[in-house]
Amino acid sequence: MKKISLMGATGSIGTQTLDIIREHPAEFHLVAMAVGKNIDLTRKIINEFRPELVSTSDKSTAQILKSEFPHITFTYGNDGLSEVAVYHKAEVLVNAVTGSIGLMPTLQAIEAKKMIAIANKETLVTAGHLVMEAANKNSVTLLPVDSEHSAIFQALQGEKDKNIDKLILTASGGSFRDRTRKELENVTVQEALNHPNWSMGAKITIDSATMMNKGLEVIEAHWLFSIDYDKIEVLLHKESIIHSMIEFHDSSVIAQLGTPDMRVPIQYALTYPDRLPLNSANRLNLAEVGKLHFQKMDLDRFRCLKFAYDAGRTGGTMPTVLNAANEAAVAAFLDGKVSFLQIEDLIEKALSNHINISNPSLSDIQEVDAETRNYVYSLLKAEAP
Amino acid sequence: MKKISLMGATGSIGTQTLDIIREHPAEFHLVAMAVGKNIDLTRKIINEFRPELVSTSDKSTAQILKSEFPHITFTYGNDGLSEVAVYHKAEVLVNAVTGSIGLMPTLQAIEAKKMIAIANKETLVTAGHLVMEAANKNSVTLLPVDSEHSAIFQALQGEKDKNIDKLILTASGGSFRDRTRKELENVTVQEALNHPNWSMGAKITIDSATMMNKGLEVIEAHWLFSIDYDKIEVLLHKESIIHSMIEFHDSSVIAQLGTPDMRVPIQYALTYPDRLPLNSANRLNLAEVGKLHFQKMDLDRFRCLKFAYDAGRTGGTMPTVLNAANEAAVAAFLDGKVSFLQIEDLIEKALSNHINISNPSLSDIQEVDAETRNYVYSLLKAEAP
Repeated sequence: MKKISLMGATGSIGTQTLDIIREHPAEFHLVAMAVGKNIDLTRKIINEFRPELVSTSDKSTAQILKSEFPHITFTYGNDGLSEVAVYHKAEVLVNAVTGSIGLMPTLQAIEAKKMIAIANKETLVTAGHLVMEAANKNSVTLLPVDSEHSAIFQALQGEKDKNIDKLILTASGGSFRDRTRKELENVTVQEALNHPNWSMGAKITIDSATMMNKGLEVIEAHWLFSIDYDKIEVLLHKESIIHSMIEFHDSSVIAQLGTPDMRVPIQYALTYPDRLPLNSANRLNLAEVGKLHFQKMDLDRFRCLKFAYDAGRTGGTMPTVLNAANEAAVAAFLDGKVSFLQIEDLIEKALSNHINISNPSLSDIQEVDAETRNYVYSLLKAEAP
Repeated sequence: MKKISLMGATGSIGTQTLDIIREHPAEFHLVAMAVGKNIDLTRKIINEFRPELVSTSDKSTAQILKSEFPHITFTYGNDGLSEVAVYHKAEVLVNAVTGSIGLMPTLQAIEAKKMIAIANKETLVTAGHLVMEAANKNSVTLLPVDSEHSAIFQALQGEKDKNIDKLILTASGGSFRDRTRKELENVTVQEALNHPNWSMGAKITIDSATMMNKGLEVIEAHWLFSIDYDKIEVLLHKESIIHSMIEFHDSSVIAQLGTPDMRVPIQYALTYPDRLPLNSANRLNLAEVGKLHFQKMDLDRFRCLKFAYDAGRTGGTMPTVLNAANEAAVAAFLDGKVSFLQIEDLIEKALSNHINISNPSLSDIQEVDAETRNYVYSLLKAEAP
């Protein structure tokens, strides 16, 4: 029986993590969770899984729920997130929040020697060096949940890092894969949210459309697998069936494949190094699929991917700026404040405005993150009618 | 420095094994080899690799070569093959002969506790239960060299057998993939020898065209990975880039990919569980390949594959009959004595003529092998004009 803390329980990865726990009641038990703003879903999850500790986003929600579930401990906000992250009964923390808000609780969970199943790529993008340093110091395993990184992690089992020549991250191309830049000028939020293969949260779906998601994943892969950016390649593969690959120095390529179903990498992170049946998953039938397509990635078409490679290679606080500017810009797009292509412009301006700090401390990162968001807000204000 | 005995040194797998030894002179050393009828190539190999023991197919060749290379020990025939297989200085035997002639030396090498890199699938088809029993008893590892089995073996590293749901062997479809049975009636030996992806020996190229090669591989996989026939699937994949796959019970699929190059699986067998660079290999470039195709296998179109599944499931001496009849029929086709589709007819007749012996001994197998060949010869005589 593995005891699990779950941050982001009401989100897309969160509810799919709960599917896994539901499918294997003898194996997994939810002891603590942090939720978003969906109070009805929170009630349902509490009734079904009976966690001991629940953190909500705000105080009033915690108070309402406390009156309904008096035997459960409630907490809220950033402190609540931290309490869930280090809850003493949990062995594994599933970090499924979106954004760099996941950084502090991740570092705290590492200090508390929890295993971390990490779906929260922004944490590794913004402070990969600090997270990996803490994980190494505390002998904590970081288990990737992103389908691409899980694919690489699975393909790496039984292999030696020294034999890796290249990681090949596959990219579906997102909602707008087949549109030219010209055709992106007037796309709507609804169009951008319509991902061809994966059903995901809003932020990551927009990140997929801008290809920033793949950029964040490149930086995440750099940290998780401690590999040079020159050895990380992105390949367009519209079916999202080969989830990613490793090319070894003998030219052999090991890949992980499957239908697009996030429950598979989530469950693998929870069962690693073993596997459990996942009977509810759709099986891959390649004869039915018929064809898999591959295409070179175009960094002029997908500028965010180039920003990410550049920021990753520069290092220091550049990835923090990349991530914070992207979070602010995507929020502005989802709020209807900027157009789709302005997301790229805002990020580009934030990056070129920033004076890099090398080997930044946690407080450097927190400051740069806040400054970057403020800078993007100031650009939005300046441009507002 | 790994010391290698090589059976079948002048054949296709043999010369590619020598390529690997040549590329890594500090890692591998050829100490003994058995050769076919190509005396010029044998001279070249001796001059380059200076093995201590060489076995030729006949006595006169051994005598000629002895006069040229007085410091090398020569031997010949079946006894010579056995001497090479158990040569005391060798740690690994690469068994790259074609046909069930490889069985006895393989069993002897296992008794002598050599690691076996096995490209000789007929040995496992004809007597898989005896070979695996001996390997287990002597704690000898059988390392697959066939690209499909190497793919599965590579995909299995770091995984547990108990979690396997299915092995998926890919099949290129061979020289006649896109022809109907009607169109096969008058094909020539030259057409059959023209494989679309792999450059291989004559026997295996014909086996690919009849799909018997895949049938033999199904039986080989059954023994190597100790898995039920119901869990072994064959998938048409004309590019031969995904070399094979494992589907685990969580629905995750691990595959091994690469350009069609037998040196990769040969080298993996020699470096296992590590890998060495193989700089001369062509790297896979999926963006250039563009598309991979997959198609359900049709057992009515490819009758030999059905024969193999049936013989494998029946067990006993049926796989021996399948293999011996196939060896005799393919030889007859290559000699221009029967048409392409008659290969199937001869095998079918031999199988239906045979009274199965369950749990056969080595001498049962040797008798049935000889009887089957004689039965096929008798059919050929009866049909001769």
